[in-house]
Amino acid sequence: MKLVSYERNGQASFGAVVGEDGVVDLREALGGRYADLQALLAADALGEAAAAVQGRAAEFHLGDVTLLPVIPRPGKIWCCGLNYGEHVRETNREVTEQPTFFLRVADSQVGHDQAIIAPPESTQVDYEAEIAVVIGKAGRRIQEADVAGYIAGYACYNDGSIRDWQKHTSQWVPGKNFWRTGGFGPWMVTADEIPFGTVMRLQTVLNGQVLQDATTEMMIHSIARQIAYVSTIAPLQPGDVIVTGTPGGVGARRSPPVWMKPGDVCEIVVDKIGTLRNPIAAEG
Amino acid sequence: MKLVSYERNGQASFGAVVGEDGVVDLREALGGRYADLQALLAADALGEAAAAVQGRAAEFHLGDVTLLPVIPRPGKIWCCGLNYGEHVRETNREVTEQPTFFLRVADSQVGHDQAIIAPPESTQVDYEAEIAVVIGKAGRRIQEADVAGYIAGYACYNDGSIRDWQKHTSQWVPGKNFWRTGGFGPWMVTADEIPFGTVMRLQTVLNGQVLQDATTEMMIHSIARQIAYVSTIAPLQPGDVIVTGTPGGVGARRSPPVWMKPGDVCEIVVDKIGTLRNPIAAEG
Repeated sequence: MKLVSYERNGQASFGAVVGEDGVVDLREALGGRYADLQALLAADALGEAAAAVQGRAAEFHLGDVTLLPVIPRPGKIWCCGLNYGEHVRETNREVTEQPTFFLRVADSQVGHDQAIIAPPESTQVDYEAEIAVVIGKAGRRIQEADVAGYIAGYACYNDGSIRDWQKHTSQWVPGKNFWRTGGFGPWMVTADEIPFGTVMRLQTVLNGQVLQDATTEMMIHSIARQIAYVSTIAPLQPGDVIVTGTPGGVGARRSPPVWMKPGDVCEIVVDKIGTLRNPIAAEG
Repeated sequence: MKLVSYERNGQASFGAVVGEDGVVDLREALGGRYADLQALLAADALGEAAAAVQGRAAEFHLGDVTLLPVIPRPGKIWCCGLNYGEHVRETNREVTEQPTFFLRVADSQVGHDQAIIAPPESTQVDYEAEIAVVIGKAGRRIQEADVAGYIAGYACYNDGSIRDWQKHTSQWVPGKNFWRTGGFGPWMVTADEIPFGTVMRLQTVLNGQVLQDATTEMMIHSIARQIAYVSTIAPLQPGDVIVTGTPGGVGARRSPPVWMKPGDVCEIVVDKIGTLRNPIAAEG
């Protein structure tokens, strides 16, 4: 299944994508038992959702709704940095024995087709193609061999970064948390459709030009290792998100640098998931 | 007022401390209109709470409840690092023009008298005395001159840190987010009782020994500057928390280092607020 969170007629809901661009409203189809996708995951009700979608016709089109971030308000958004060799090299850093993690807050996210906001404080708005893992089951100190059972699905993520604010100090969090700078969508593809360990290709396409292109085989710290690491720190909960790192080719490290400007369109393409597209807009 | 979040008979609520250790249940006194302290703040209803408490007798004792973190699930917990000169010097770092910020997640917090958990992965469990500012009003790009109107109150915070995990990589977030390592309490003293700009003295007392002792006059980046900075990144919301930095004297930088062990009792004392006390316990 492809699951989406969206707003329609001012009402937040969630649903399944059927056919090319049809949507079944799962909140309604499941009798209002689950307020949102996070609640569905917490109830371990993906099977119930699949049964409800079975044989049901699309109720409206994707174009009729405003897509929200796949999980609009995750309890935690763990982001892995420096996780592809080429990106580590272009930033003049070194590979670390342990994975590098920082956090994003929910407010920093936008859904598919929503604008990534260029704030007036900076012109250094950068893209980062990533794959987001959505957690489906609570767990602590999950062993690497066991992680598959904790993954609900995968989505595209644009870990949008305000580079000068990221470099104000040693800690990157400020530049990684500007309001509406992180794209998360268009949907979550459930893990049954992407068997654990499937190699995925991820790309950034900015105004039609490919600027990042890599596969998950090039990760330094695997998804299994990442889940084991962050779940040692604190319990993972359904709806928590792990954003698994970006490959080489970010705008800041190009010569000359490539910054996203209002009017640009940035796409994160993951072959096994789909395309997350966000226009860039000035604030206000 | 001193406001607390707590659990009593398995039910989460919030209330006001009256007299030495009496509690008025504000959830009930306000007719259930506000589910928690965060909702009270979001409704700008501190005045309504004060009126409800007026003349009401204590319904039970602080000792009858389990205190929760003052705000159990803040939307954001912004933490300022390296904000007192002595601490910057003891960590061999330099003062930065911009304040250093990282994030904590809600799960990393505990309330007054709850145990700070020493995880089996580390023996380097450290204390950090800090003052937490609780936001009472939504705002973006708040000017330094205007911050007073956005502060609901103040609490003690122990920014408990697992030092080896903090130093795994350049990013501190992992060592700052272990489950139940950050103390937040015992209560929030509302801002009307601590006029903006009041100098406060903060101390760490571990097993009766004073290990940190400083005043807010020694901050490098003022509370006003911190609120202006983080509210530029993303909107602040009622119930968001800003943890304003720790002075010199942390355990990691002592010779020999002082680590907190199961059985220890750590107190964060802020003269204008009160004492946050947490025993240290091994996990499980």
